[in-house]
Formats: sequence, structure tokens, C-alpha cells
Amino acid sequence: MGVYANEIHVQTTEQTDIIDLTPLVLMEIKKSGAESGVVTLFVPGSTAALTTIEFESGVINDLKKAIERMSPKDIYYEHNERWHDGNGYSHVRAALIGPSLQVPLIGGKMTLGTWQQIVLLDFDNRPRNRRIIIHVA
Amino acid sequence: MGVYANEIHVQTTEQTDIIDLTPLVLMEIKKSGAESGVVTLFVPGSTAALTTIEFESGVINDLKKAIERMSPKDIYYEHNERWHDGNGYSHVRAALIGPSLQVPLIGGKMTLGTWQQIVLLDFDNRPRNRRIIIHVA
Amino acid sequence: MGVYANEIHVQTTEQTDIIDLTPLVLMEIKKSGAESGVVTLFVPGSTAALTTIEFESGVINDLKKAIERMSPKDIYYEHNERWHDGNGYSHVRAALIGPSLQVPLIGGKMTLGTWQQIVLLDFDNRPRNRRIIIHVA
Repeated sequence: MGVYANEIHVQTTEQTDIIDLTPLVLMEIKKSGAESGVVTLFVPGSTAALTTIEFESGVINDLKKAIERMSPKDIYYEHNERWHDGNGYSHVRAALIGPSLQVPLIGGKMTLGTWQQIVLLDFDNRPRNRRIIIHVA
Repeated sequence: MGVYANEIHVQTTEQTDIIDLTPLVLMEIKKSGAESGVVTLFVPGSTAALTTIEFESGVINDLKKAIERMSPKDIYYEHNERWHDGNGYSHVRAALIGPSLQVPLIGGKMTLGTWQQIVLLDFDNRPRNRRIIIHVA
Repeated sequence: MGVYANEIHVQTTEQTDIIDLTPLVLMEIKKSGAESGVVTLFVPGSTAALTTIEFESGVINDLKKAIERMSPKDIYYEHNERWHDGNGYSHVRAALIGPSLQVPLIGGKMTLGTWQQIVLLDFDNRPRNRRIIIHVA
């Protein structure tokens, strides 16, 4: 069993951009040649997170609303008072969801459900060129 | 160090069924023969999640209430408007908690705390026959 | 590629103590001699969790407030009624955030962002001597 590591790059927009990474992850797995193991995904940075969801615009909006309830954009954040970058809510959201995700690989395929996609949640308040680390072993 | 992968199957009921997977995971580890490494667990599907908790009915109910506060069952969900399956809340809850969990294995034992169990949270609004992927390496 | 496993020990205080583990994790990676792979971190126990955040006291306080909104300390918990240890909120918080975290290791360095630190969140209502399992492979 070999080890494969690479970076996926995606451009995001401001305000909780949720992006389907699955096609890019599938391309990396193909490049890796791996048939079995675990796919580890990690997003560097403290204002983004990873999870899985059915990538359907209705439920994506529902998820955004739930996250807004957990950590509203327009309440007081100490972080904003100190750093004046206005993204205190982004940091809190990212810490609550978390930056890492693992998906087992069996017979060359990830064990995702039929309607389950891998998504990047970019909570930052400005567009970012994000990189996501993929490790297959 | 070998690699072991298998599926665990559990039957769930509707409405946030929380099931202790620990005994089933322990059986798989025994079958794997592994002494050290990492146990990766993953639930395929976009309406279920994995975490750890003390599996005690009081705190299980407390967790259900916290999840209901985060993503109430009976508020408006765009997902329901479009798909009419009424489980918008299930998708949002699953995305917030996440589908993957890792536990190190040392000396043939998972490094869980004494009162810490591995649980499946099935948020769907109908009974499901769930499979959980276990990978030990 | 070898395998390295060890324990990190930290002393915590009561009431949502958030501790930067990054320097201790870096020391373990150095001891492991590993150049590439995945760093898996896991906190045994059902009242603590792991995530990443910019370790800056403003946003640490913001995170504590968000967690207090999700699972307030002073509401009713069935767990407290039964066990009289008063830490029902601690269990719920730990289950929502989760006990495991993975960070890829490339060229001897974790792929953390510049302002992204690994943190232990200890939610228990008494000081604890916590151990965190680190596995590098």
C-alpha cells in the first residue's frame, strides 16, 4: 500500500460559501491509484471547515441558516474588537465544525452514501483561494 | 501491520436514534487481530453521524435536546419544500456533527475513556438499516 | 514509514478550559522522526473535545460564548438529576464537538494554516489531568 498526498485548490466567495469537493477528490483518488485505505481531508486555515451533506441547494441553505443560529454574523465578537477584520463569526463557526474528515476507500471507491457529498465550508468574510490537503493511505 | 475493513450493521428507529456501537466495534477489532494503529469509523448517508458520549440514558436525552435546539425538527426547511420527505432537519444535524470518527488502538485496546462509548446518531425520520464502515490499520 | 504513538498530558481548570496543544504536538512529531503521514489526535473521556482555532484570547472567548449558547451550563440536564455531578452540559458539549482530529504531515510539518492551532477543549466542571493520544503514521 503506497501513500499519496496532494493539494486541491478552490476559489471561494465571501459569506459561508459551501462547495462540493467530491469531483476533485475523485480525481485525486484516481491519480493516487489506491484501491483501499482511508482518504484524509484537511483544510488549512482557521475560518473554514469540512463535512458531508447532500449537495442540494435547498438543504445547503438550511445548513447556512443553522450555522447562522449557532454563531450569528452580526453579534458582538471580541475578536473583531481586537483585530478589526470582522470575521470573528467565521473563526467560531470553523472551530465548531472542524477542519478534518476521513472517508474509507474500498475497492477503489469511497464509501460515501448515494446522496452524500464532501463539502468545504468557507466561513470567511472575503473571497479566498483555499487549498485542501488530501492524503490517501 | 495489516489492514482490516468491514461493515457493521444496525437497525434504527425514526427520530434521533442514538445507538451504542462500542460492543460491535470491539468484536471487529478482535476479528482484525490488530494490536495497534487507528480505528476509523464512517457512516455512509447524509442523515446520520458519529461521536462519543457516556452512554447513559439521561445524558443521551440531554444531547437530543441540544441537537433539537441547534436544528429544530418543526421549523421551515427548504429541503422539505423541494423533496417532500420531511427530513431537512436530519440532513442539517448530520452535517453539523459529521460522519467520521477515529480512535487510536494501543496494545489491542481502543484508547476510549472509561465512560466513553462510540455512538451512531441516526437523525432520519424513518427506520433505517444502517451500515458503518470500520477500517483498522 | 514507521508508526509512533504516545500520550500528551495537560492540567486543566474547571469551566471550559481551552488549551493550545500545538507546541506539545510539535515536540511529539519531532520525537517520532516522521516526515509524512497523518497525525491523529484523540482525547479519552466524555467531557473534552479537540478542534483547531486561532489561539487568540478574543476569539477563544467568542468560542466559549457560542458553546454556552449551544449547551448552556445552567439549564436542566437529566444527567445531573441522576448522577448529581453537575456536568451534564460538559458531556453534551463534548459529544457535539467530538474527540478526534487529524492533521496531515508533509515534509516533516503539519499542514496547519499560519494562524491555526490545535486546541483541547475541557468542558468538565472540575480540574482534570488530561491525556491526549497522539498517533503518527
